[in-house]
Amino acid sequence: MDMSEELIQMGHGSGGLLMRRLVADLFARRFDNPALRDLDDAATLELPPGQIAFTTDAYVVKPLFFPGGDVGKLAVCGTVNDLAVMGAVPRYLAASFTLEEGLPLATLERVVTSMAAAAREANVAVACGDTKVVARGEADGMFITTAGVGVYEGVGPARAPLEAGDAVILSGTLGDHGVAVMVAREQFKLETPLESDCAPLGELCAVMREAAPRIKFMRDPTRGGLAAALNEAAAANGVGIEIYEENVPLNEDVVAVCEILGLDPYLVANEGKVVAVAPAEEAEALVAAMRRHPLGERAAIIGEVVAEPKRVFVRTVVGGTRILEMPLADQLPRIC
Amino acid sequence: MDMSEELIQMGHGSGGLLMRRLVADLFARRFDNPALRDLDDAATLELPPGQIAFTTDAYVVKPLFFPGGDVGKLAVCGTVNDLAVMGAVPRYLAASFTLEEGLPLATLERVVTSMAAAAREANVAVACGDTKVVARGEADGMFITTAGVGVYEGVGPARAPLEAGDAVILSGTLGDHGVAVMVAREQFKLETPLESDCAPLGELCAVMREAAPRIKFMRDPTRGGLAAALNEAAAANGVGIEIYEENVPLNEDVVAVCEILGLDPYLVANEGKVVAVAPAEEAEALVAAMRRHPLGERAAIIGEVVAEPKRVFVRTVVGGTRILEMPLADQLPRIC
Repeated sequence: MDMSEELIQMGHGSGGLLMRRLVADLFARRFDNPALRDLDDAATLELPPGQIAFTTDAYVVKPLFFPGGDVGKLAVCGTVNDLAVMGAVPRYLAASFTLEEGLPLATLERVVTSMAAAAREANVAVACGDTKVVARGEADGMFITTAGVGVYEGVGPARAPLEAGDAVILSGTLGDHGVAVMVAREQFKLETPLESDCAPLGELCAVMREAAPRIKFMRDPTRGGLAAALNEAAAANGVGIEIYEENVPLNEDVVAVCEILGLDPYLVANEGKVVAVAPAEEAEALVAAMRRHPLGERAAIIGEVVAEPKRVFVRTVVGGTRILEMPLADQLPRIC
Repeated sequence: MDMSEELIQMGHGSGGLLMRRLVADLFARRFDNPALRDLDDAATLELPPGQIAFTTDAYVVKPLFFPGGDVGKLAVCGTVNDLAVMGAVPRYLAASFTLEEGLPLATLERVVTSMAAAAREANVAVACGDTKVVARGEADGMFITTAGVGVYEGVGPARAPLEAGDAVILSGTLGDHGVAVMVAREQFKLETPLESDCAPLGELCAVMREAAPRIKFMRDPTRGGLAAALNEAAAANGVGIEIYEENVPLNEDVVAVCEILGLDPYLVANEGKVVAVAPAEEAEALVAAMRRHPLGERAAIIGEVVAEPKRVFVRTVVGGTRILEMPLADQLPRIC
């Protein structure tokens, strides 16, 4: 196959030779691993006995490529992260592609190459996949859905009820992913290009479970941002959460773009951050351990669980209070 | 939520309240089961120790509803069947929806209700899911991707090499699914409406493994039809396959539509059929057992493995020979 010239045709999604060539020349090569190698109707996974974690996400980000990532890297990291925050060790992915007829094969190759690199970084194997093609105008370029399987090893999050006094910890700056994608989509010119934080969190989450064995809650604040993740946790536990604004790590450029566009960084999607709740006595050791990991360098205690009010609110730098509501919808569509 | 009036909005794919309502009022209710109930970032699956089977498929069928099924039923059966033909018992599904803004919520509800019924019939639990919404014109109604997890229980296919003399067994009529979808899409008027054969094959495949413990190969001939499934098996084993045309079960209406439109039923997709290869001495017991199952009533020995020629060919009713090539692409796009 000539990857540099060819375009995706309807036949690339058929059960015939065209699809088989695409699978053999692209997917099987880039994703090569023992589970995938048979290219059977289903992959056979070797897993240790015990419970497994299972998750799926569709990725419809626009544009397909943005500073710091692309739809392929995102489709690996997003699903890996959903397993990691559950306390599972991500092991296998399934990857399903819905392609628009006429998509340059070179674009697909670039995405698949990026997925393969992200899978290696995340230490997961793409075990199985599927390709469908729809006619021009019936999809916007490329949608990818991944499903992930992980195993529970070692200590998991205790999943105990959140209680007043528990510490809220964030692994780094807020809003980088959503703002970077939006800037790329709208083709704003910035002096310093903002980068998505898109990264696999499996290792960092393992470090966190190790450092804080009584950690109660971990979540990757993606769609809906930190506001959605914390509102969900507070409501589920019948508690409130106070955020100390001065402790929340923020990238200056993200703040600047958000101010210009009227966005709230607390509501913008992240793709390489984790927010956690742990007993106060474990919080400092937890933050120290996180800071030793490259994805947790700016980790901080950003707040605490409170009994009242049963709301999520930000204690601002000037001493005021701002309620952080559960968002109704996203500020930014097609961000992941 | 008022399912009868509302349309899908961009916010139904956000991380906010609109999406949470859709999940709570529709997905969580229809798919209700212990694995899904937590609505966490990943579901926790209880599986017996041992190898597991893992697969995924995207479903982009057009139209969304057709006689005998719809995209939801298809998204359950297709993935369940990929596990079943591997010799695994299907247990869990992940379901990911990519929706076009403006899709009537009633359409989504109908599809999800159908998926839930198919999942009950197939004895699988929808353990996790995701919803993304793209703007009008960026997708064609609704695409669904499912991933499936199954467990190996009891005897599996022996996966021994295919040898001259082995029998080729088909569970029923060819081409019903592809022709039914095509007739629905093109709005042809037929006196007898053709129905898709879309059905979950887990039970039938278990019956087959039981009746023919040395069964070597099972495959659901979907895209590319019987021609693709048998060409793949023949090429992988360095053998040929002879098909006895007079033994191949065919629905008269399918034959009639295929003749009018110049389609070959051997190349048309099926969604509720299995083709198998077993040692000749197990073939009759296998067919007898299959015929006792509702999905195998018209099972038949349709051919045999031959040493030469190393091709798949049909011995026609009049005594001629027709080579059945591996198709280059599908005759019919967006059939599944």
